[in-house]
Amino acid sequence: MRALMCEPNISEGRDLKVVNAALEEVQRVAGVKVLHVSSDADHNRSVFTYLGEPDAVLAATQAMARVALQRIDMSRHQGSHPRMGALDVVPFIPVRGVSIAEAVEIARQFGRFLGALGVPVYYYEEAATRPERAHLPDIRKGQYEGLEVKLQDPAWAPDEGPAAFNLKSGATVTGVRFPLLAFNVNLRTADVSIAERIARAVRHINGGYRCVRAIGLALQGQGLVQVSMNLTDYTRTPIHRVLETVRNEAARHGVSVASTELVGPVPLGAFEEVLKHYLQLHGFKMEQIVEMALLE
Amino acid sequence: MRALMCEPNISEGRDLKVVNAALEEVQRVAGVKVLHVSSDADHNRSVFTYLGEPDAVLAATQAMARVALQRIDMSRHQGSHPRMGALDVVPFIPVRGVSIAEAVEIARQFGRFLGALGVPVYYYEEAATRPERAHLPDIRKGQYEGLEVKLQDPAWAPDEGPAAFNLKSGATVTGVRFPLLAFNVNLRTADVSIAERIARAVRHINGGYRCVRAIGLALQGQGLVQVSMNLTDYTRTPIHRVLETVRNEAARHGVSVASTELVGPVPLGAFEEVLKHYLQLHGFKMEQIVEMALLE
Repeated sequence: MRALMCEPNISEGRDLKVVNAALEEVQRVAGVKVLHVSSDADHNRSVFTYLGEPDAVLAATQAMARVALQRIDMSRHQGSHPRMGALDVVPFIPVRGVSIAEAVEIARQFGRFLGALGVPVYYYEEAATRPERAHLPDIRKGQYEGLEVKLQDPAWAPDEGPAAFNLKSGATVTGVRFPLLAFNVNLRTADVSIAERIARAVRHINGGYRCVRAIGLALQGQGLVQVSMNLTDYTRTPIHRVLETVRNEAARHGVSVASTELVGPVPLGAFEEVLKHYLQLHGFKMEQIVEMALLE
Repeated sequence: MRALMCEPNISEGRDLKVVNAALEEVQRVAGVKVLHVSSDADHNRSVFTYLGEPDAVLAATQAMARVALQRIDMSRHQGSHPRMGALDVVPFIPVRGVSIAEAVEIARQFGRFLGALGVPVYYYEEAATRPERAHLPDIRKGQYEGLEVKLQDPAWAPDEGPAAFNLKSGATVTGVRFPLLAFNVNLRTADVSIAERIARAVRHINGGYRCVRAIGLALQGQGLVQVSMNLTDYTRTPIHRVLETVRNEAARHGVSVASTELVGPVPLGAFEEVLKHYLQLHGFKMEQIVEMALLE
């Protein structure tokens, strides 16, 4: 069994009837499994996480999109999270046996579908059509309120759909990204400056690992600090290497690692290098894991 | 999706038509997945490994057993591996979401099925009816050739089926055992006595870990030695603890771990404590692994 994950962000987090109506369209598609749903009233935004065979995930996402576009009116939307459309961001995430190229093809099919419904669509990350559209914040700059003017700029002509402002639905960003790991390392000190120093040591922007974003923060009431990280591509920057670097930098201050956390869904593949490293299990094949046979 | 594994050993490893006929009965059952088949002409014995929902695995094993009992004649069997029956040993192994008690009930259903076909049946390991029948070698002592006399001893009255010698089929041992891990640690020395010393340090019989069997041996031509182990219950004696003890004992001789091996199928659960230990990932839930959602 192959698996493509999809994590659409829709601009409704208060009227749960609308959220549930959209979600039901996903649940209705055979072979699609919903992992997680979260709605935030302050953000006025909901995120669904589901996965299944690529075709089933595309069908579920299209059905969900129809409901979201029908029931959400961006001209009346308020919320604290940046957004530019009713169906704001729709990342497709290859999880198991799906190539980046195939996931991009699914994202493109979804983009054409939305474009035909009159929604301007931008492709981002692995599906981007030009470098300046690779990153979501660049595309979303100006948000829904700036979209009417932005669409008049030829540099921001949409990748699909009309170059015309859609008052009700705004615009949608869709594309393909690698599964992201939310990895936190808790340190046995109350000195947040140590977590901040270590965050700078491991993150890409300051000379650290290519696929790490990091900040240092205090864990209130626990007397600990945390190096809070996103690992954006665990095949290039694996978990164990980042942890051992954090451990080493912390030791310089006489500080130990208290614990770590992986938040949310984690693809099994993220653990392959971890197991091979610590167990020195060089020749191990992940297919030896019994449960994997059940997924074939 | 729950999974029970079954690993029947049949007394035919030369006539592959018979082996395949038996195997086809397993493959015919919907939802049963064959992981591994091996036939050894010298042993004159074959081992199948398959898994699926408990009821499906029982049905597959019964269908396979009918063919094996019909096509294998123990009165003409010769082979170098100890055996007492056409269907020699049939362990059921709980892998995912199946309790020991439920697996024992499946083994008992299978035992009654065989008994009704006129085959004397002994239950072993977790399904044993008395302590002296817990271990396979004790039950199989005297082999097929000693069975006629053994069955006249009231102490060896079978758990199911007639207390009478079945010339064609011999007797069958069935039951439930925990998944076994074949875990080898390769050491960077050519001195086999070091591997032997470490094997004695970690194995149960000499005062080591409760669920470890171990021997030391030389890896011919590689200039390395190996501590070759079976971990008989990884929930009680986890992989990482054994490895770190081997590493520590080897360091006493100035010897390093070159690599390790896990041979054959490994349940994902065997890695839970490994990941939590080395990553200090105390609160992680294995359900967070994305692929696990596909098995629900």
